[in-house]
Amino acid sequence: MEFLKVLSISEVINLIGSFPKLDIEVVPIEEALGRVLAENIYAPEPVPHFRRATMDGYAVRARDTFGASESMPALLEIVGSVEMGKAPTCVIGPNQAASIPTGGAVPDGADAVVMVEYTTLIDESTIEVYRPVAPGDHIMAPGEDISEGSLLFEAGRILKPQDIGTLAGLGITEVRVHRKPRVGIISTGDEIVDHATKGPLPVGSVRNVNSFFIAGLCQEVGAQVGMGTLISDNKEILHEACINSAKYNDVVILSGGSSVGIRDFTLRVFQELPESRILFHGVAIKPGKPTILATNNKTYFWGLPGQPTSALIVMFALVCPFLLAIQGVNPSFPFSKAVIEANLASRVPSVHGREDYVPVKLVKQGDKWVARPIFGKSGMISLLTKADGFITIPEHTEGFEEGSIVIVNLI
Amino acid sequence: MEFLKVLSISEVINLIGSFPKLDIEVVPIEEALGRVLAENIYAPEPVPHFRRATMDGYAVRARDTFGASESMPALLEIVGSVEMGKAPTCVIGPNQAASIPTGGAVPDGADAVVMVEYTTLIDESTIEVYRPVAPGDHIMAPGEDISEGSLLFEAGRILKPQDIGTLAGLGITEVRVHRKPRVGIISTGDEIVDHATKGPLPVGSVRNVNSFFIAGLCQEVGAQVGMGTLISDNKEILHEACINSAKYNDVVILSGGSSVGIRDFTLRVFQELPESRILFHGVAIKPGKPTILATNNKTYFWGLPGQPTSALIVMFALVCPFLLAIQGVNPSFPFSKAVIEANLASRVPSVHGREDYVPVKLVKQGDKWVARPIFGKSGMISLLTKADGFITIPEHTEGFEEGSIVIVNLI
Repeated sequence: MEFLKVLSISEVINLIGSFPKLDIEVVPIEEALGRVLAENIYAPEPVPHFRRATMDGYAVRARDTFGASESMPALLEIVGSVEMGKAPTCVIGPNQAASIPTGGAVPDGADAVVMVEYTTLIDESTIEVYRPVAPGDHIMAPGEDISEGSLLFEAGRILKPQDIGTLAGLGITEVRVHRKPRVGIISTGDEIVDHATKGPLPVGSVRNVNSFFIAGLCQEVGAQVGMGTLISDNKEILHEACINSAKYNDVVILSGGSSVGIRDFTLRVFQELPESRILFHGVAIKPGKPTILATNNKTYFWGLPGQPTSALIVMFALVCPFLLAIQGVNPSFPFSKAVIEANLASRVPSVHGREDYVPVKLVKQGDKWVARPIFGKSGMISLLTKADGFITIPEHTEGFEEGSIVIVNLI
Repeated sequence: MEFLKVLSISEVINLIGSFPKLDIEVVPIEEALGRVLAENIYAPEPVPHFRRATMDGYAVRARDTFGASESMPALLEIVGSVEMGKAPTCVIGPNQAASIPTGGAVPDGADAVVMVEYTTLIDESTIEVYRPVAPGDHIMAPGEDISEGSLLFEAGRILKPQDIGTLAGLGITEVRVHRKPRVGIISTGDEIVDHATKGPLPVGSVRNVNSFFIAGLCQEVGAQVGMGTLISDNKEILHEACINSAKYNDVVILSGGSSVGIRDFTLRVFQELPESRILFHGVAIKPGKPTILATNNKTYFWGLPGQPTSALIVMFALVCPFLLAIQGVNPSFPFSKAVIEANLASRVPSVHGREDYVPVKLVKQGDKWVARPIFGKSGMISLLTKADGFITIPEHTEGFEEGSIVIVNLI
């Protein structure tokens, strides 16, 4: 197969980084989990906004407790009781105290909280204090937790549950995030039949596999996915399907069969779409070389290789990071759910100038993980679930020796 | 504070493991991403179900190519052309061949595929073959990818994108999974005000933080979450709210304020719910000791500590694994999105008989990660986002020395 415009992985990474981000929309924080911030967020107010007790005890003037001990306790008059959630109703003068719960507002006059454990209630209006406290003890000053105007989150952050909690705590009810990409998936291939086709299938047919994991991975990086119908290897029908899908979607992913014919169709269909440009046709990665990306400046058109393992690798290597990038994330290549360090079980050679992705199975030996490269024949789908992850061999190295420490991207 | 029934972390883990799983429902595979299989799945048919070519070339009888070389090619008659997705229309006899694409069905009579690279088309009905092939070369036998009846996935597996692809490939259109837990969150606390309350807040008030990250974490482990309104520290209202929430939910999480009063209320309200039992009141973990779990055999009632960091840790340590367990997963404790190995930046002491969770910040030094324990005053919410993860100090150890290799659970 001839490739029209082969890019190295670093050229593709630069290209994807140059794409404009999707529009910004405002969402309530209840719906912002996993969304990508389109702006820096600064604290609109200090937290706490009042002097807050961090222990149950008594608000006091620290100087009144200096020198206090078991044998010579300080005697203080109780002049009030701070209630949770309420402003204090008393002011602490010399040798006075007010009971206060953790989280309560420290009354004026007091500059420390003495823990309840170091006090004894003598009568309803008197306590003995057995230990001295220093000014500021067990008090959180206004802004000590979060200072007003400080940077909370940077644009491009994928919001986590605890981020939503922090936003709520600061009274931020909505955030500006990038729109979710809408992805249409078109499946083609004369040999591909719908997954609901009952077996035994006719000789030569296989069910649609790729569209399903492509859809799942797109969802995992925040895209909204529409699954199109299967279409046969017909250039006109494919052209029509691309044009239709582009009406509703930001991204169209063509999941082709593995025949030579369909690969050629994909390129020609992409070339003939109105105002389209081929951004690349061929990437210096293995597997996944026959990947195509085209655009008409409104919609991106991806053509993926037909082999299931190749298509899966291209999703991790390129398409998922791309979908994150247009949502405003500064993505890592490849997309990674989690990584683990492992010892490589056998030598994996590679070729200079090409990035290799090698599926591996992880096996625990003692307290170490061992990564065993797995290989299979072209078109095998069992590799999809046999592999726990993959390792990448960068373009400027010639492989890894047995026993090398490698980073495994879990899939 | 007195604890009624303190359990060790291993007792809680055993207890949670004994809970019945949620009902089973049938979902189409398009909606099964992230769901938990309720049954083992076996391959209903072999993959491939026909002899499939794994290279573009010619289907031949291997014996007809024995001894073939550049100088003495084998001359074969082309008797057909296999089309993608179609049953072959020819049979290969002695010294015959049929062109075949990758993925095509190998015709009867042929026992190998010779790669197109090692052939020359002499005329429209004749090829020269330059290299011998062995029987089986470049053919995937029926069942070689997945054998009929083999175990594909075990019950308890959380379905990944590539699993959905494999199910599709085998014509499995629906799967039996455990129902998603329905979780109701009740927020209480006299000092807590709605997150939408505009600042500056009255002295003593804080906005609701915990309900938001609790909701987000529940969603991340597959639960459907309903967020209740805020209620004040009133035992009768709390009782009523628990009873109402239990009508619609499998799990009710009470996210309390941090006052002493509300903690006592929670226990008493749980005790007084019809037919309820307190499963534990107090867990030997730090932070998070004042966690309560009760049940009326239909609904679980969790009472979480009010401190944001404590509540977050309890979600990771106990509630998320619990939500996975009742969905049929054999969960790990604590719940972990991803882990990373790091060197501990400073000594962290602990106490025998208690499991400690220490928030850490990760810093890259050279090619190693260093985990710096972070501490903060009670009630700080900035820790929620300052921490990259946490380390656990098991109940039977007394802490870690500076420089120890620790496993950091990313949050």
